Amino acid sequence: MAPQIDPERLLSDLKTLRSFGACGNGVVRQSFCDVDMAARRWLAGRMAEAGLEARIDGVGNVIGRSPNDGRALLMGSHTDTQPRGGWLDGALGVIYALEVARALAEDRARAHLPLDIASWMDEEGSYLGCLGSASFTESMGDEEIRRAANSDGRSVADALIAVGLADQAPARLEPERHRAYLEAHIEQGPVLEAEGKLIGVVTSIVGVRTLTLTFSGQQNHAGTTPMALRRDAGDALIVLAARLREALGALAAERTVFTIGRIVFDPGADSIIPGRAEMSLQFRDGDEVLLDRMAAAVDRLMEEANRAGPVRIELAESSHLESAPMDPGLQDHLAAAAERHAPGQWMRMPSGAAHDAQIFARRVPSAMLFVPSIGGISHDFAEDTSEADIALGCQVLASAAASVLEELNRP
Amino acid sequence: MAPQIDPERLLSDLKTLRSFGACGNGVVRQSFCDVDMAARRWLAGRMAEAGLEARIDGVGNVIGRSPNDGRALLMGSHTDTQPRGGWLDGALGVIYALEVARALAEDRARAHLPLDIASWMDEEGSYLGCLGSASFTESMGDEEIRRAANSDGRSVADALIAVGLADQAPARLEPERHRAYLEAHIEQGPVLEAEGKLIGVVTSIVGVRTLTLTFSGQQNHAGTTPMALRRDAGDALIVLAARLREALGALAAERTVFTIGRIVFDPGADSIIPGRAEMSLQFRDGDEVLLDRMAAAVDRLMEEANRAGPVRIELAESSHLESAPMDPGLQDHLAAAAERHAPGQWMRMPSGAAHDAQIFARRVPSAMLFVPSIGGISHDFAEDTSEADIALGCQVLASAAASVLEELNRP
Repeated sequence: MAPQIDPERLLSDLKTLRSFGACGNGVVRQSFCDVDMAARRWLAGRMAEAGLEARIDGVGNVIGRSPNDGRALLMGSHTDTQPRGGWLDGALGVIYALEVARALAEDRARAHLPLDIASWMDEEGSYLGCLGSASFTESMGDEEIRRAANSDGRSVADALIAVGLADQAPARLEPERHRAYLEAHIEQGPVLEAEGKLIGVVTSIVGVRTLTLTFSGQQNHAGTTPMALRRDAGDALIVLAARLREALGALAAERTVFTIGRIVFDPGADSIIPGRAEMSLQFRDGDEVLLDRMAAAVDRLMEEANRAGPVRIELAESSHLESAPMDPGLQDHLAAAAERHAPGQWMRMPSGAAHDAQIFARRVPSAMLFVPSIGGISHDFAEDTSEADIALGCQVLASAAASVLEELNRP
Repeated sequence: MAPQIDPERLLSDLKTLRSFGACGNGVVRQSFCDVDMAARRWLAGRMAEAGLEARIDGVGNVIGRSPNDGRALLMGSHTDTQPRGGWLDGALGVIYALEVARALAEDRARAHLPLDIASWMDEEGSYLGCLGSASFTESMGDEEIRRAANSDGRSVADALIAVGLADQAPARLEPERHRAYLEAHIEQGPVLEAEGKLIGVVTSIVGVRTLTLTFSGQQNHAGTTPMALRRDAGDALIVLAARLREALGALAAERTVFTIGRIVFDPGADSIIPGRAEMSLQFRDGDEVLLDRMAAAVDRLMEEANRAGPVRIELAESSHLESAPMDPGLQDHLAAAAERHAPGQWMRMPSGAAHDAQIFARRVPSAMLFVPSIGGISHDFAEDTSEADIALGCQVLASAAASVLEELNRP
């Protein structure tokens, strides 16, 4: 028999976590803010009650380490949110991990197995996307992490001092102990719902390139400056943005997505020609060759615009996440558990969103499980998943975790 | 002999006024803010020292009324600034009026002539563009003015209570007394400099239409929402903005200008599809028929976009200023004074910028004088005019004011 999760306990913890930063149906709980730190302290307490050795490490990761020895499975996700986030997002995967740890501990046949769990700091990137998993896996250096700053110019180092973590050591991946990583998450898209499935087994996480384009012209009066004499940074942005969306649309494959999510005009007044403007451009696909082609198209269009003038355009890559295939063996454990608890109602699918699992996949076999998002909505206060789907996903994850741990620790 | 202005006194007062809200080379002195009110109290003091009956009226206008009877000339401009404004803008015309009043009082032959001067509230439209002149000329009702709100949603009525003016009566144009209006201003454009002229005599002020377009879509995750299922408010804005600039460019006459000065994406994050977006669109020309054609083109393109979907677009006219021809007789007084003090170095020209004179022109013969803007730059911290040009402009204005007053009060 599989370890049995307790749906009421699971939902109760999810709802308590939601209360930290609740705002209407949504949650506002950005990394290192007071409510985020309060949620981390609460979570560490729940981990300790579950029999784990709980701590908040030197970058804010909450780690619940099993007292058991052996080849461990690591499970987690993140409890920070977007500036106006949904209540489940990463929180679901963290509380799933906690509930699976409790279910294993209550299962006499599996209480000896080592399951470590975590909430990774700042997956959403208020300071630096996937900061906590990058620290844990040492895929970025401590100094580089500490220098990263948020949009107010505040560094991670300053944030750590402010929350009293500057003296803590960062926790690290232990290669001898941590042999596999599993992460559950809401799908954040409409595919499972559209296909009528309850569980997604992730085959790969797409690569993400995020660019910032900056336009420098001359601020001036919008009534007295003849059109021919203008160096209008906003106008140059509109022209290039329209060309970029057409060029990327022509290159895009079936699952490619691209987004201009942020435009800022400076000073941004009705009667003033913008002297400066900025936009983000992000594109995602599983195929790195296609992403390279898209990046080259952006470069080419920007250079054309710079040659034409009169506004100076500069480009910086603000983030570059390579696509990550999920481990086939771990996928099969998830698939077997899904077929057991939801026969015929699961599917394999790529993840269009970035996740901490992408960072872990470089160091240790990793895989992900998805549950449906109602209406495909996420990163919005309206984000939700039915309670039945939430409970089913956790039970599938518990079964998969048990079978992975049994295989890892087979004598 | 013409009344003699005192260039040192003029520049000293301009520099003192600059100190209220100074920020680098620029000035930040938005209507009703503390520094704006402090500048008004200082200005009222200077008016009283010049022998005028000075008061701050029930909408914040600073009025310096001459004790002399007769047919009066009214002169003024505004001392409020843009959010990041230049130091001269409207301040120049206000201090010119003060200096001309002093020069007339010191001129035995003209000390009996009635010159009333003013700084009109909120020309820049933090709350409502040309609020003060609209109140003074009664071209808008008191209630409509009091309801106008700034971008924080604060009403003029609340602002007046906060600055202690709610109990003051608004000053009004006196048709029997006020027979002409003159306003001096920096050109705020590059024409005088390019033509090598020192004085501009304004022939007409162009009409201005300012629209706000609002785009309503569905906020969602930028990685997991397939392109075909998106309702991206930002993308709809980029497409329509690119079409609008082409359509207006095709309609524009030689002096027409149009500007997209403000774009806001909500929530404005790299990884989130904007659920809502907003842009301003402003166009100016002396020909109201052309402005109507441009407005119709905007309507048509917006309706096309709405029919195509999937984002809902709405349009509101946030401001509508009709073009205003300047009084030919007053223009001739200004031209004669310019020819006297700067022979061959003046020109007639339209004003691309809106001014309080546009409001006055509906009620009383009105005209404007321009001095050059260095590099044509305005509404920017870099805005400037040479001290020699500043002094010359004031002397021309003083001569013109004297001849206008003499003509008005000829027995």
